[in-house]
Amino acid sequence: MQEFQNRIGYRFKNEKLLETALTHSSFSREKGAGIEYNERLEFLGDAFFDAVIGEELFRIFPDQEEGFLSRTRASLVCERSLVKVARKVELGSLLLLGHGEEKTGGRERDSILADAMEAVIGAIFLDGGYEAVRETVLKLFAGAISDAKAGKFVVQDYKTALQEVLQAEGKTLDKVKYVDAGAEGPDHDKTFTVRLEIEGEPAAEGKGKSKKQAQQAAAEVVLKRRQDAI
Amino acid sequence: MQEFQNRIGYRFKNEKLLETALTHSSFSREKGAGIEYNERLEFLGDAFFDAVIGEELFRIFPDQEEGFLSRTRASLVCERSLVKVARKVELGSLLLLGHGEEKTGGRERDSILADAMEAVIGAIFLDGGYEAVRETVLKLFAGAISDAKAGKFVVQDYKTALQEVLQAEGKTLDKVKYVDAGAEGPDHDKTFTVRLEIEGEPAAEGKGKSKKQAQQAAAEVVLKRRQDAI
Repeated sequence: MQEFQNRIGYRFKNEKLLETALTHSSFSREKGAGIEYNERLEFLGDAFFDAVIGEELFRIFPDQEEGFLSRTRASLVCERSLVKVARKVELGSLLLLGHGEEKTGGRERDSILADAMEAVIGAIFLDGGYEAVRETVLKLFAGAISDAKAGKFVVQDYKTALQEVLQAEGKTLDKVKYVDAGAEGPDHDKTFTVRLEIEGEPAAEGKGKSKKQAQQAAAEVVLKRRQDAI
Repeated sequence: MQEFQNRIGYRFKNEKLLETALTHSSFSREKGAGIEYNERLEFLGDAFFDAVIGEELFRIFPDQEEGFLSRTRASLVCERSLVKVARKVELGSLLLLGHGEEKTGGRERDSILADAMEAVIGAIFLDGGYEAVRETVLKLFAGAISDAKAGKFVVQDYKTALQEVLQAEGKTLDKVKYVDAGAEGPDHDKTFTVRLEIEGEPAAEGKGKSKKQAQQAAAEVVLKRRQDAI
């Protein structure tokens, strides 16, 4: 437990909270009703994980709109990120599990690790308050956050992003059309072309190995052009 | 602006933040690109509204499970609550809106009021930190919170609640069956009976004016019985 606290970079005043964060419901069920397990702390941790990452993205990206912040947070605040950090701090080895869960590999199960990681975040908040949880989360998730800074989580869905931009400008979406503009190459290796029209005017062309890819490429062209124009 | 700060019970160090929270995108679009509007603050406020209410429910209900806390928060953290508070503090009168929005009644529109209220919460967080936003939100939403304490938001959907309990115990839901067990009374005033079977065994019976009501009643019996047994 001491080493775990070193690994997460936070020392608990009340270690009982950490213990509860590491207690899976299956353990509590097996031992009887008295033992608290981590689901309530997970509820709390989930909210503060969101808040801390939200605050950080708000500060890192002063010029980005709400849509970008939401999408970036959604890619960052996910089971995958939580599991990655949980494995790094070797959370699994300290989990208290019931026999059934233990036998079926619960100690390595993504969902159990992610939930316990969130519970640890909740426990840190209860133990040390907002500043403590903020500092610890930013350290633990520094990798994911710098990925976000580097644009690694930037939208892959350009069609949706373009829609949002146009909507924000009050344009109705029925004014945006993706028109098939032909295909080249042999059947097994076709390249599709799609023309994107905005308010009846051709705005860009995109190419791709599927019509969907071609649509995305066209939307990307328009978005990039607009970004360059700012 | 001074009076508004009295009404919300928070005085800003940086009033520019409050102004941005009260600026709708339509105003900014009309005046040109330089003017910040409230959507980014709304992103922030949304997260801290969730966190503050989550923390409060966690503390108010030390014996309730995660499912109850989530459901109660979902009923509390909603557009309706935000609009209610926004109207009470007369937020609408201070909104900066574009002409179009103004003409079509934007100043009284629920979604615009709720979004701006969330933005105000975000602005308070930025201006004063977590303790300030916590204190202010708890004061502003004291009514909704005491409704929650009084059990006003308690689950009406016992079937879902029972499913959650059984799932948490690892029971598969195909083991839960609601079986029609007859109806009494005249056609226009029938009382239906439903038998709830868990793992093939009759667990409870419920009666109601519709089959749905009868199912809910049966689930409620099982839930209450289990709560009493703890």
